Amino acid sequence: MGSGAYAGLFPLADVYAARDVDGKTFGEELERIGYKGEPRGTPTVGAYFEAHIEQGPILEAEKRTIGIVTGAQGQRWFEITLTGMEAHAGPTPMARRRDALVGAAEIVRTVNRIGHEFQPDACATVGMMQVHPNSRNVIPGRVFLTVDFRHPVDARLAAMDAALRAEAAAIADKCRLELELKQILDFKATPFDAGCVAAVRAGAERHGYSHRDIISGAGHDAVYVAKIAPAGMIFVPCEDGISHNEIENATLDDLAAGCQVLLHAVLDKAGAR
Amino acid sequence: MGSGAYAGLFPLADVYAARDVDGKTFGEELERIGYKGEPRGTPTVGAYFEAHIEQGPILEAEKRTIGIVTGAQGQRWFEITLTGMEAHAGPTPMARRRDALVGAAEIVRTVNRIGHEFQPDACATVGMMQVHPNSRNVIPGRVFLTVDFRHPVDARLAAMDAALRAEAAAIADKCRLELELKQILDFKATPFDAGCVAAVRAGAERHGYSHRDIISGAGHDAVYVAKIAPAGMIFVPCEDGISHNEIENATLDDLAAGCQVLLHAVLDKAGAR
Repeated sequence: MGSGAYAGLFPLADVYAARDVDGKTFGEELERIGYKGEPRGTPTVGAYFEAHIEQGPILEAEKRTIGIVTGAQGQRWFEITLTGMEAHAGPTPMARRRDALVGAAEIVRTVNRIGHEFQPDACATVGMMQVHPNSRNVIPGRVFLTVDFRHPVDARLAAMDAALRAEAAAIADKCRLELELKQILDFKATPFDAGCVAAVRAGAERHGYSHRDIISGAGHDAVYVAKIAPAGMIFVPCEDGISHNEIENATLDDLAAGCQVLLHAVLDKAGAR
Repeated sequence: MGSGAYAGLFPLADVYAARDVDGKTFGEELERIGYKGEPRGTPTVGAYFEAHIEQGPILEAEKRTIGIVTGAQGQRWFEITLTGMEAHAGPTPMARRRDALVGAAEIVRTVNRIGHEFQPDACATVGMMQVHPNSRNVIPGRVFLTVDFRHPVDARLAAMDAALRAEAAAIADKCRLELELKQILDFKATPFDAGCVAAVRAGAERHGYSHRDIISGAGHDAVYVAKIAPAGMIFVPCEDGISHNEIENATLDDLAAGCQVLLHAVLDKAGAR
């Protein structure tokens, strides 16, 4: 939230009003601990660099030390509800069914196929599914599911979006289901500044670290700051791509290499000024 | 439970020990209300008839008054767990995923296809699905689902079972998932006694009621009693196939017709003795 508010993406009032699970607001808690300052006017940042574990499996699998992050994926999130007709699984003939889960399965398949079709770099995931009434001898009458699409090129992401809408409608039609499809997030792809990317590359090459260009799939402070200043990122490998988890792990050597590249990228950009 | 215990399918001790959601046992509650009698030795039943709403949509859709029930479907129930690898939906490339929901969707599709392939009379349903961790930006690591197969011919049901096992294994293999498949119910198909079926048919024809042969998809007392005595059933239409629900509905005329057929079937069998 800090970097998003700083970059002007989130209104300050919304950030202060955000509540945790206990109902406490972020603004009141900042005040309570003495950290609620005053906005300082327009930010002036020459360049912003951020070093991070990859949170994915690519660098580890390819045995590269440094990921030169060229930008962050755009994201579009959707919520889909399919409604058919709940009925007894025994006496209801196949031909008369309006089984919402059969339609939902086709959508999962379509989302996965779209992800594979829009390679390189597309990601497509159905992460949540809720089946109603979720009883073993009742034909599901309603299914809710979520779709998470990511791509570093906005036009490709828009094409994934269009493919989903067209195919979901066709599936609902074929399975005689009602379809409700809502887009709940539209985050544009963020290419990083060419000069910052070059500075990271130069840092990796100066030390002879193996490297590759990479896209950030997750959100980062640098992605928000990139809206108001030149920004870049350095990734290092992490074990099995696991993050936000107690077993998250990276080697000391890789972390040290990431710090070296960070230092030299900052010096590079500072010298250029 | 009463007819199942009477027919010797359920041990009496198991029935008495069954508990409701409040933890009360069936045996203690029978005793409390003065209904716990003593078993009377081997049952002697000349013939057993049961009249019932169809609990399905066929008679209503075809505008037939009487369903001549020729038997009850066999049932096989399965529980399937697919295990892959939970991972962040952003930085995890499509090609490296082990998405349990993608595999589960293929199983839903396969179950539905098997149901259509084994027509007439097959039913195949995935009624429950639980996705773990069920978060919109996490690739599902584990999915639990149930399969309900029904068919009036045991050999066909066995072939449906074999098809499921083979295809589920192939899907798990293709999607790089671990598969656990457990069969939790195996209830044989129960053809009703030819003499009882003929008596129901004669009753319907004597009154000129429109009729058709039909298979019972749900369980009934007659299905248990059929294990120890000649049994038959009469179905009448119900609105939209809905049952076990406050909106369950059947017309007075159809119910009266069902009673007429029941009466004449009983008289027929009694006269035959």
